Amino acid sequence: MLERIHHLGYAVESVEAASDFYRVSFGVEPGAPETVEEQGIVARMFRVGDSMIELIEPTHPDSPVGKYLAKRGEGFHHVAFEVADIEATLAVLKKHGVELVDSEPKVGAGGALTAFIHPKGAFGVLTELVELPDRGR
Amino acid sequence: MLERIHHLGYAVESVEAASDFYRVSFGVEPGAPETVEEQGIVARMFRVGDSMIELIEPTHPDSPVGKYLAKRGEGFHHVAFEVADIEATLAVLKKHGVELVDSEPKVGAGGALTAFIHPKGAFGVLTELVELPDRGR
Repeated sequence: MLERIHHLGYAVESVEAASDFYRVSFGVEPGAPETVEEQGIVARMFRVGDSMIELIEPTHPDSPVGKYLAKRGEGFHHVAFEVADIEATLAVLKKHGVELVDSEPKVGAGGALTAFIHPKGAFGVLTELVELPDRGR
Repeated sequence: MLERIHHLGYAVESVEAASDFYRVSFGVEPGAPETVEEQGIVARMFRVGDSMIELIEPTHPDSPVGKYLAKRGEGFHHVAFEVADIEATLAVLKKHGVELVDSEPKVGAGGALTAFIHPKGAFGVLTELVELPDRGR
């Protein structure tokens, strides 16, 4: 049911500084910064094979990612797995009592359906599920 | 220069319990446990698309992963990127003064060459580089 690693989210103090590191070290070219006000983040993404790395900077210290940085410091924030059927996956997780952040999918960028499993439910890893809208193409 | 996410390493208290979670939740089938005495770990791996997830349990609390668990709890431990030329990649990193765990590649399982970038050198993410031996096939 896990199709691929869709992306990894890294929490950083500065997407500019982190982008420079990946550009200079590995020759990748992160995309333009995108601000997502409702999440309190600025994000830049770059591709690694079939996956993406999302660099995430908080827009203010009280945002969830801002609090994460204050508590844990810079580093890995979450993994996102692409799944074929997010409703079916969530149904299995609920059946087994896995602790979820989102019990129902939310509609995200580009019409993707997303839901987070709580780190307590996934052995300490904040895990996002993503169902893409163009699966039937 | 980053070909793909080769694997993610997750530190867990029990590879059996974590394997059960991924098997029941997502229908994956982790491989048999492998003990690597020199690293003080027992590992089980499963495939997600073009990448692997490595579940890592310490064989004793004084091992690096044991200390990591005591300090940070269960969760993400490291990411491994496949690169085409690990020597060239390390040369670039050294040129830019990036803090490394391994300044020279080590020969790992199956003849792969591996080296770790220190989390301090990669915005808090322990990052492994992997050059596979069969690139020229």
